[in-house]
Amino acid sequence: MTDFSVTKAQFDLPEGMIYLDGNSLGPLPKAAKSRVAQTVSDEWGQMLITGWNKAGWMAQPTNLGDRIGRLIGAPTGYVVLGDTLSIKVYQALAAAVDLVPDRKVILTDSGNFPSDIYMADGLIKALGRGHELRVVAPEDIENAINDEVAVLMLTQVDYRSGRMHDMANLTAKAHSVGAVTVWDLAHSAGALPVDVMGCNADFAVGCSYKYLNGGPGAAAFIYVAPQHVENCQPALSGWLGHEAPFAFDLDYRPGTGIERMRVGTPPVIQMAALSAALDIWDTVDMGKLRAASIELSERFIKGVEATCPMLTLASPRDPEQRGSQVSFAFDQGYAAMQACIARGVVGDFRAPNIMRFGFTPLFIDAEDVDQAISIIADVMQNKLWNSPAYQARSAVT
Amino acid sequence: MTDFSVTKAQFDLPEGMIYLDGNSLGPLPKAAKSRVAQTVSDEWGQMLITGWNKAGWMAQPTNLGDRIGRLIGAPTGYVVLGDTLSIKVYQALAAAVDLVPDRKVILTDSGNFPSDIYMADGLIKALGRGHELRVVAPEDIENAINDEVAVLMLTQVDYRSGRMHDMANLTAKAHSVGAVTVWDLAHSAGALPVDVMGCNADFAVGCSYKYLNGGPGAAAFIYVAPQHVENCQPALSGWLGHEAPFAFDLDYRPGTGIERMRVGTPPVIQMAALSAALDIWDTVDMGKLRAASIELSERFIKGVEATCPMLTLASPRDPEQRGSQVSFAFDQGYAAMQACIARGVVGDFRAPNIMRFGFTPLFIDAEDVDQAISIIADVMQNKLWNSPAYQARSAVT
Repeated sequence: MTDFSVTKAQFDLPEGMIYLDGNSLGPLPKAAKSRVAQTVSDEWGQMLITGWNKAGWMAQPTNLGDRIGRLIGAPTGYVVLGDTLSIKVYQALAAAVDLVPDRKVILTDSGNFPSDIYMADGLIKALGRGHELRVVAPEDIENAINDEVAVLMLTQVDYRSGRMHDMANLTAKAHSVGAVTVWDLAHSAGALPVDVMGCNADFAVGCSYKYLNGGPGAAAFIYVAPQHVENCQPALSGWLGHEAPFAFDLDYRPGTGIERMRVGTPPVIQMAALSAALDIWDTVDMGKLRAASIELSERFIKGVEATCPMLTLASPRDPEQRGSQVSFAFDQGYAAMQACIARGVVGDFRAPNIMRFGFTPLFIDAEDVDQAISIIADVMQNKLWNSPAYQARSAVT
Repeated sequence: MTDFSVTKAQFDLPEGMIYLDGNSLGPLPKAAKSRVAQTVSDEWGQMLITGWNKAGWMAQPTNLGDRIGRLIGAPTGYVVLGDTLSIKVYQALAAAVDLVPDRKVILTDSGNFPSDIYMADGLIKALGRGHELRVVAPEDIENAINDEVAVLMLTQVDYRSGRMHDMANLTAKAHSVGAVTVWDLAHSAGALPVDVMGCNADFAVGCSYKYLNGGPGAAAFIYVAPQHVENCQPALSGWLGHEAPFAFDLDYRPGTGIERMRVGTPPVIQMAALSAALDIWDTVDMGKLRAASIELSERFIKGVEATCPMLTLASPRDPEQRGSQVSFAFDQGYAAMQACIARGVVGDFRAPNIMRFGFTPLFIDAEDVDQAISIIADVMQNKLWNSPAYQARSAVT
């Protein structure tokens, strides 16, 4: 059984801070410090070029991919790490449209993360084959799945509201009309149990610096379903996705299975931090995590609503329809969040008016939630946000 | 004046190893250890999400890009860091073909690094507009530049032989027929003076883990000439290349200038190592570096040829036509290199028969070269490579 007091002790959390932003950037696993130092000093420093074999750097993208695979219901050998989430979206979508060459519609919703939409837009322009990116409201997505659709591309959990799509049902509906699916798990992996195989998802992508705690700029991952992986012609056909990268042939031949989704040299030092984070994840039961996450977020909603009537819940009230975050709408949300942060409750703000709080049982417990509620109540009841210092916006929020 | 005994002291080099493979993976700058530790513990650990502003993570790709820019002759504001070299090749090439829409030939040579060719191949397939990748021998490249060519895509220094293209002349010839150029500087940046502005190069890309010593998996860079940068419609249109990433608009609008070549979240921990490496580069005069590099490689060729008649020089004899590496051809090259490595002289092997040695004045001096010659002479004269242990190939060489 997962003991979250044990996992909490494995993170370095700043004194006096209640960090409800693990949905944006996870905190530092204590072991990452020595793991990264070891990779830098003992591996890079002492092994130099031989580290690619001796220290296992070359195999890390699939080794770490498999460990993430367990958290999202992927079988061994179908997840690989690399690049950034935007690049992985591009790879997945390019492969997906190829599987349904006679249709031109890529369907998504307006709650998708903008970069996914931008990458789709760039791919469509590059392809120049008349594909259409059809963007509908999240609540209209199910009805919009029809036999014009080539690819259904969705982020499972909305980054603003935490609203969660029903991955199994939407995937089944997509398949029933002959479409394939690309799921972005940025706010799902490490947040709740995901079952890409059980849902029959075709492609899935995600990042590892949010709930997975891989560190700022940690690499992304991609899953390709077993029935598709050998049929994908990679659009980003880099040498490390080649069947024999070190033969240095001039002709590209895709590697076996998921290896073909590799592109260039993997970020070895970043991967060291992620491997330390995954040591913690290896001990976690995702069902227990989900139960704890719901308990914490329900407690938070109840406490905030009881004390802050000026905040409007912007997340689904039903926990079954919510990821692992809770959002409240407030017109002065930016300033209010700055005031909370100044008092040690760190969430974040998303335009136009969303105050976002992430619940991450690995290092947040009920006592943290109660303290956070009391600080937020103080900020809201006493209008502590009403200070010029909190109104001035920085570039990154 | 650059003092290379001072720069040498700034690297952690394994005791008893003569590392002639800095052209493949540069060694560890001593300062990278504390810099990375600081980024992990003090920035990620203590600042968490606020590190994007407070620690300057978000600005690192352009800040580090500008420091690399000085080494390649780029003006401030036209180089940005991110992703891997293969991705940057894709971005540059996609933008380049768009600039010459009425032509279909992408011209390159068979000495180009295979991944550049693979990425071009993938782009051509994705575009589906009948582009042709025309691959000629390196010595035929100049004559192959004609008015069918849309883009001349070359790696300046051949990864196998060290043969160097004349970037200024070939760029001028390309422009004279109305083509644009994409230069891969993987074996040029930090190896010799490069002048992208003086050569009037249109696009240039490179990696930072070879001569630049940024660490395994360090990010790549891209330069776009001032006259093109505002006209480029990024094919990989990620959110951090958006004009206002944190407005989370659904429509992509490219960012100002080189910012548009950013894609996703930058690798913060990798960048910390690179920033320590660039502290050393900031002190280096590239003219002095080139003089020292030529002196070392000439000394090496002379010494090896005097003692090892069975080795055939596979690099240009004229140092003006060579990068900062020296290659010898030998049928048993793989085993011979293993025997050298076992005795502390670390170069590498490239199929089919190339023994490759990199000369990096920042941490290799004349004494190292003399010791290397004597060890190589021992291996070759006494056929020490003739052992089964050295014949067995590992996956990565």
